[in-house]
Amino acid sequence: MRVIGIDPGSNVTGWGVIDGLGQRQQVVEYGTIRLDGKEPLPMRLHQIHAQLVSLIQRLQPHEMAVEEVFVSQNVQSALKLGHARGAAIVAGAQMGLPIAEYTAMQVKKAVVGYGRAEKNQMQEMMRMLLNLDKKPAQDAADGLAIAMCHLNQRQWHQQTLPAAILGLQRGGRA
Amino acid sequence: MRVIGIDPGSNVTGWGVIDGLGQRQQVVEYGTIRLDGKEPLPMRLHQIHAQLVSLIQRLQPHEMAVEEVFVSQNVQSALKLGHARGAAIVAGAQMGLPIAEYTAMQVKKAVVGYGRAEKNQMQEMMRMLLNLDKKPAQDAADGLAIAMCHLNQRQWHQQTLPAAILGLQRGGRA
Repeated sequence: MRVIGIDPGSNVTGWGVIDGLGQRQQVVEYGTIRLDGKEPLPMRLHQIHAQLVSLIQRLQPHEMAVEEVFVSQNVQSALKLGHARGAAIVAGAQMGLPIAEYTAMQVKKAVVGYGRAEKNQMQEMMRMLLNLDKKPAQDAADGLAIAMCHLNQRQWHQQTLPAAILGLQRGGRA
Repeated sequence: MRVIGIDPGSNVTGWGVIDGLGQRQQVVEYGTIRLDGKEPLPMRLHQIHAQLVSLIQRLQPHEMAVEEVFVSQNVQSALKLGHARGAAIVAGAQMGLPIAEYTAMQVKKAVVGYGRAEKNQMQEMMRMLLNLDKKPAQDAADGLAIAMCHLNQRQWHQQTLPAAILGLQRGGRA
């Protein structure tokens, strides 16, 4: 099970691809798409979209997870972020990937067990949990964390759903 | 010169394709992409993107014009609209179209000569100016108006730019 996690942004979009191998998780690749703020908007959105499509073609993830937006920002930044998320989500949908969304708080809880972790703590945790040689860049760390969150969620479902069914059957026999 | 005008929205995206033939303008086709609000966001954005890509492939416009956002709305609606605009803009950029943006007020001024025209007036004006049998739906009328606005802008540039240069030359001779 291979997941691409994406933290879309109007300036920098972070991404990380992780394989879930049973309990173990292994990083495939991660990075950032950095945009030139001086480029016109269509060009920037095209960059996000085209680079993600080509990443998906090359790395062949099975599912995509995208950070949902914590909207404490003003209307202009919400609109900008919406553009970037739209471009990213379209790339995944176009390539036929199921797409899950998680809030930043869900991601942090799933990964560091603490919903208010700082950016720096997240980078350090990603380095440790994924055995990386160095701390990934902030946005790339967020991409990895989102992918990891999604893998954990899926594993949880796979482990607990059969158990729940088993529990019912046992209950029936008792 | 064929232009596709787009009025993106999270529920309905209006579009119109117009040919500019010298002073004359002729409608090619127009319509709306209506989305089911109950579908998940990635599916809806994919619809906007995929349907616009297929429209562009079929009707082969040379340029795209998109309505810029008049942001008097709240943060949540700005984000939603941003998603839809992102998906639409990516469709045009992916197909290699130059993309222009106009505010609703620019569009109205260019088309009805009055920046505060009502929705209903816009529909009526589109029917008249483009010799349509019936009033187009609101969002489709907006798509047509944006395409028309872009054609008018381009024509204005083509007419006035050489005149301006000519003016300079005359000035030099005087």
